[in-house]
Amino acid sequence: MTTVAFQGERGSFSEEAAYKLLGRRIRVQPCETFAATFQRVVSGKARSCLVPIENTLAGSVFENYDLLLKHDLHIGGEVNLRIVHNLIAFAGTTLQNLRQVYSHPVALAQCGEFFARHPKVEKIQFYDTAGAVKMLAERRRRAAAAIASRIAARVYHGRILQTHLEDHHENYTRFLLLSKTSEVPKHANKVSIVFSTRNLPGALYKCLSVFALRDIDLTKMESRPLRGRPWEYFFYLDFVGHVREERCRRALEHLGEVTNFLRVLGCYKSGDK
Amino acid sequence: MTTVAFQGERGSFSEEAAYKLLGRRIRVQPCETFAATFQRVVSGKARSCLVPIENTLAGSVFENYDLLLKHDLHIGGEVNLRIVHNLIAFAGTTLQNLRQVYSHPVALAQCGEFFARHPKVEKIQFYDTAGAVKMLAERRRRAAAAIASRIAARVYHGRILQTHLEDHHENYTRFLLLSKTSEVPKHANKVSIVFSTRNLPGALYKCLSVFALRDIDLTKMESRPLRGRPWEYFFYLDFVGHVREERCRRALEHLGEVTNFLRVLGCYKSGDK
Repeated sequence: MTTVAFQGERGSFSEEAAYKLLGRRIRVQPCETFAATFQRVVSGKARSCLVPIENTLAGSVFENYDLLLKHDLHIGGEVNLRIVHNLIAFAGTTLQNLRQVYSHPVALAQCGEFFARHPKVEKIQFYDTAGAVKMLAERRRRAAAAIASRIAARVYHGRILQTHLEDHHENYTRFLLLSKTSEVPKHANKVSIVFSTRNLPGALYKCLSVFALRDIDLTKMESRPLRGRPWEYFFYLDFVGHVREERCRRALEHLGEVTNFLRVLGCYKSGDK
Repeated sequence: MTTVAFQGERGSFSEEAAYKLLGRRIRVQPCETFAATFQRVVSGKARSCLVPIENTLAGSVFENYDLLLKHDLHIGGEVNLRIVHNLIAFAGTTLQNLRQVYSHPVALAQCGEFFARHPKVEKIQFYDTAGAVKMLAERRRRAAAAIASRIAARVYHGRILQTHLEDHHENYTRFLLLSKTSEVPKHANKVSIVFSTRNLPGALYKCLSVFALRDIDLTKMESRPLRGRPWEYFFYLDFVGHVREERCRRALEHLGEVTNFLRVLGCYKSGDK
């Protein structure tokens, strides 16, 4: 049984994403921080880890972009998870007597309409969505609920009082599966790279031209500061293709000529929307 | 005397940046959040506000990118501030008896070498750098200091025990001055825009080509998710030039043809490095 590390308590959205990508026959390893999650794989204690890289409302998770560059792990898979917020409680709490809701500040902010419809319910910030369910399971506070994934309700044996609390239904998080193996999985159709440009006018344009000339579709571009070189950046790029496909091979060769630094982070099968 | 709003307590790095850009003859208005800082200008209670947009170690301040798009304010100036962390204390505290240091988690993280050299000193997280100095000024805790800007020492009459606590000296924050006026200031030499591309292969490449064709230098590019349209993005671009310069005028016209949405956020004099 393969071991997958993720950040957060048992029952987190990362755990839900891990089941969606790999099925239920996995051993999960919750970690306190993203840095510790990567370290678990680097040290060999877990075979792989699954980390969020972007959310369609909140944007990129920069810490994980930086950790991708810091460690020599390879992206071997991707999964997009629709974020559905559930109101989870324990015996004695109903929608009628509810007075307090615990969750991560981002989750609370994404459920504004629910709180507008229930003005007597107090929002209480907690460090983690699943952690809030765990706390209620242990302390059995009456008239209190948590907002978290449906997996959290299952893990802590809570009851879902209401589902789809989120204001925006187009709320997806994209997760990457990382491991030490550089083997390219079957049906891979997407490549992620990181590079830094030479400091010349039109440098970024030249970099993008190696893809445009070959009709290669870019799906995402992100920039991060280059530490110690103020106002210079690393660029992270995702494109549709395979590292062994000729036009992609040539594009990467060509890109090597116009960059200072270039690394392929992985070639993997893209997640469903 | 002009009024400038900023986020944070009196003595923040934003206040230091405001003095660097506008001189000392300004009236400052500290605000609790970035949203409240923008609102102060929108409502007419402050003539302008100064907000951080990126840091050379931590990266972009996304909340302010999103607020730029949400509100109809114009960028009228820019200033880059070298972030120098100071150890600030009050009577009775010396480097010898120091046991606790309060500051914002980012500032504490940027002074790792100081804490490695002083293993008996405990790091204590606080909501704000200048706020930590204010708290010490009020409660006069012995053996405690705060890490903050030199302006914070002046505002709260603290003593700087040591300066340059930061590990990386190449630590700059770029701030933007925003107001309701769309008048272009004298000596303007930089333009900031935001656009969304049409959903076509090579769309971003076509957008950058309007600048490359005219040898216009890009200084920064940032992407943010387009809410309600998963995996589509707004792009924020800064380039060297003036909106009334012919090649820039033509580039923007040309860009209008290949984008769905385009807005000029401002034309202003770039800050010194």
